[in-house]
Amino acid sequence: MSKSYPFRFIISYDGTAYRGWQIQQNLETIQGVLETALSRLANGQIKLHGSGRTDRGVHAMRQTAHCLLPASWEPPELQQALNSLLPADIRVLKVGRTTREFHARRSAVSKEYRYLIWNDKLLPPFLRYYRMHVRVPLNLPAMRSAAALLEGRHDFAAFTANPNRLVESTIRELYKLQVTQKGKEICITACANGFLYKMVRSLAGFLIQAGIGAVPVSDTVSILNSRERTARVPTAPAQGLFLWRVSYKPLKLQA
Amino acid sequence: MSKSYPFRFIISYDGTAYRGWQIQQNLETIQGVLETALSRLANGQIKLHGSGRTDRGVHAMRQTAHCLLPASWEPPELQQALNSLLPADIRVLKVGRTTREFHARRSAVSKEYRYLIWNDKLLPPFLRYYRMHVRVPLNLPAMRSAAALLEGRHDFAAFTANPNRLVESTIRELYKLQVTQKGKEICITACANGFLYKMVRSLAGFLIQAGIGAVPVSDTVSILNSRERTARVPTAPAQGLFLWRVSYKPLKLQA
Repeated sequence: MSKSYPFRFIISYDGTAYRGWQIQQNLETIQGVLETALSRLANGQIKLHGSGRTDRGVHAMRQTAHCLLPASWEPPELQQALNSLLPADIRVLKVGRTTREFHARRSAVSKEYRYLIWNDKLLPPFLRYYRMHVRVPLNLPAMRSAAALLEGRHDFAAFTANPNRLVESTIRELYKLQVTQKGKEICITACANGFLYKMVRSLAGFLIQAGIGAVPVSDTVSILNSRERTARVPTAPAQGLFLWRVSYKPLKLQA
Repeated sequence: MSKSYPFRFIISYDGTAYRGWQIQQNLETIQGVLETALSRLANGQIKLHGSGRTDRGVHAMRQTAHCLLPASWEPPELQQALNSLLPADIRVLKVGRTTREFHARRSAVSKEYRYLIWNDKLLPPFLRYYRMHVRVPLNLPAMRSAAALLEGRHDFAAFTANPNRLVESTIRELYKLQVTQKGKEICITACANGFLYKMVRSLAGFLIQAGIGAVPVSDTVSILNSRERTARVPTAPAQGLFLWRVSYKPLKLQA
């Protein structure tokens, strides 16, 4: 069977049990589990391309991926077959045909992540893998002021843990960095044309420092401009982070 | 240290990893884990009394329990010490002093359970341990009509899996059996003066049968009156069930 037709997937996963998205030898990864299921259906090795990696313990509401499969396959049947092979912590929400030009990573125009914090003395047992727990009350106006200073096109070298930052550009455009609250839950929404390694968790870690008063909001710009990662920008834990959605230009489907 | 003063606890737990509430030799149970933590703090064996058992995989939003502890202990410190010893899937929400007359099981005047169903083709990965997944659309009006026929004081022998039902009364007063919907989530709320073994899961199982059209609503009363458990009343799976709250008469605290 020739595997030549491009398909696009929207995938949701609970990252708790996985060593992140990217396939690794002898480690359980989301890409690995998906490729195994696809390859089993296709009776041959399938390579799946995601919009980007997520780290160990990070979740996805709507990750996007693509791969080549036999042209005769119908999206609804493929979705059902995949979900019946996959474990319950990975679900394929949508399968569709796409164009040869479409690439889950390169065609993405923006990505949205959400970092969820439970701001209360106690973390409900049901949320222990899905929220960062912050016991002391966070100062929302301070977090919002700091967030506003980080929006826009900047060199985010101070907000990444990427060891390759000296050889790759660390300039990104942060379209939105917003802090919202609903009861005890605080949500940091970050939308950008792309993110550096651990950038969202670094932004979240910094905003939490501002929210507990450990770093004054007035230091935000100097930290950003320093382009140096320091202890004032801690990496917030993985379990609060969700890849929320990946946006693409509208598709022109092949006839 | 004399352990003579009555304390009352409100506890929330994710039942996924436990063999239910009730202590059992060599098995991880919620009561067992709580008694171990209390006994460690008290430096001696503490017996904890819950409002009732929950089965393996069943959750609790607000379980109530009581035990005797040293009179000098302060509730806020006790709560903090307990939570620091307990695993994150068991949280003590509240600790308070109570009266000698108070008994978590015998003093309860009513209990509320909620059974949560995700009624959609796909179950989101984050809900896999907390919802029953029903793929076919449920007929809510049928479920509500059947539920209304079960409210009130009845012999619920047809809705229990209790092997002791021949020696104990199977009459209970079901104050409320309500079916509500919010998006793809359907909630069955059951409130009664007490519940038989697996009664809520049997009521939920039956209402789902009515909702998918497997049992006509008009058979509800004859099934109830038969006092015989049959295959028409399946037991819904544990993971959808939450002990929501236990109600007591207002307390008169000791001086």
